[in-house]
Amino acid sequence: MKIGVFDSGVGGITVLKELVRQAPEADYLYFGDTARLPYGSKSAETVAKYTISACKFLRQHGAEMMVIACNTATSLALPQITNAMDVSVVGVVEPGADSAAKLSKSKKVAVIATAGTVGSHAYQRALKSRGIEGHEQACPLFVPLVEEGWVDHPVTEQVAHIYMDEVFRNGSKDTDVLVLGCTHYPLLRPLLRRVVPQHVSIVDSAESTAAVVAKQLSAQPGTAVPHKSAKPDDRNSKLAFFATDSVEKFRKLGERFMGHSIENVQHVDIEP
Amino acid sequence: MKIGVFDSGVGGITVLKELVRQAPEADYLYFGDTARLPYGSKSAETVAKYTISACKFLRQHGAEMMVIACNTATSLALPQITNAMDVSVVGVVEPGADSAAKLSKSKKVAVIATAGTVGSHAYQRALKSRGIEGHEQACPLFVPLVEEGWVDHPVTEQVAHIYMDEVFRNGSKDTDVLVLGCTHYPLLRPLLRRVVPQHVSIVDSAESTAAVVAKQLSAQPGTAVPHKSAKPDDRNSKLAFFATDSVEKFRKLGERFMGHSIENVQHVDIEP
Repeated sequence: MKIGVFDSGVGGITVLKELVRQAPEADYLYFGDTARLPYGSKSAETVAKYTISACKFLRQHGAEMMVIACNTATSLALPQITNAMDVSVVGVVEPGADSAAKLSKSKKVAVIATAGTVGSHAYQRALKSRGIEGHEQACPLFVPLVEEGWVDHPVTEQVAHIYMDEVFRNGSKDTDVLVLGCTHYPLLRPLLRRVVPQHVSIVDSAESTAAVVAKQLSAQPGTAVPHKSAKPDDRNSKLAFFATDSVEKFRKLGERFMGHSIENVQHVDIEP
Repeated sequence: MKIGVFDSGVGGITVLKELVRQAPEADYLYFGDTARLPYGSKSAETVAKYTISACKFLRQHGAEMMVIACNTATSLALPQITNAMDVSVVGVVEPGADSAAKLSKSKKVAVIATAGTVGSHAYQRALKSRGIEGHEQACPLFVPLVEEGWVDHPVTEQVAHIYMDEVFRNGSKDTDVLVLGCTHYPLLRPLLRRVVPQHVSIVDSAESTAAVVAKQLSAQPGTAVPHKSAKPDDRNSKLAFFATDSVEKFRKLGERFMGHSIENVQHVDIEP
């Protein structure tokens, strides 16, 4: 089974990493539309057009399932993408909202994300349909801080305190789940764990999405058996990466998200 | 005289603001290519193509001179842009380098900019041709901090200390000029003044560029006389803005750079 993983950039690698951990039997094709990011400032129509063109590329390269590991694309265009594809499409919002809904006893959940995702209120809608009151908060500095490599830096901790004070002041006091609604944020999870009140569970959309995909795969006959022969040094052999901007830049930043070196990065020139 | 001012986003408004102050007799058309930013991660070819298409749009709308208020576009594509246009084109790098060269006694100048501008080494080349040793330093968090509105925030001051420690550790001790090589940075000037060693002069490329344009205008017959009738509440009447992404977002962020409300923002759908 070959799975296509799409993101506007490298952030979706946190989803890919979870997929490899939870569904190691599959092969993965990762597409980062780095030349056209950020998607957060683009219209829903443009985001749909770009994402569909990337997914069709992945389909042509053999992907039999699509994971939209991009909160913006999922928030703004999942129905359009699903309609345009002839294979199963999984986004990151529903799995994250679902995990949060199952964990929350107070039925009050906070979601942190980019301004684009917050503006779409996709998480709020997904939570509401599960009877949960969602409070969304944009944290615009988290992505640049992660990309600067300051994932455990005093400055980032100070910024996290400022944002989390807002989340837990504006959100009601009995909020008991925090959803990481941006693919960059899992890298801040250890830091956030120190800053967020102890009674609050942290839900990582990347982890939840991978769990949904793993479940779908195990339900399909003939795909449930992991390749027992896979050795640790085979970790790159089942992964291929495509980037629309510089391969070197993708590799450099991507390795930070993957946690090990990345090979098989190819440049793609794509027109919608 | 109508002047076209181009930037990939709203940052170039710091240049526009200086132009209005130093050459108030001209009318200004500002183009922010907000749908296609950031330019910093794009190839020189793409940056040239996008910038030329925007400049041609401004030319069609009557601009008789172009100011490329975008460090990336200036660094990567000024010759191509100049060749493609039939009017005078002024970039931001040469004026900034020129001011710095005139101010520096030690002949050692530091330049802070985005990673894209630093990667092009355009400032280093411009300084070298003036007999100056240039040391460039990327400050990737400054743009998001300015866009978050934290221009005088303790977090920004802490980040500035970290970056400036690098600048003045790596750069030689006798560096006596710091060039702000990004259009967002003038908003951090008061904060940077507190952080940068007192013997170091700060040169703002926006200010230097406006001075070059004002000088060119005053050399042209019939354009040197300011409109004495202009009243403070006329401040928007001689300005028109074009944005390729959301007008509302442009206005909201742009007003922070302009220092007063912005009107006359029109959406433009442009294809290169």
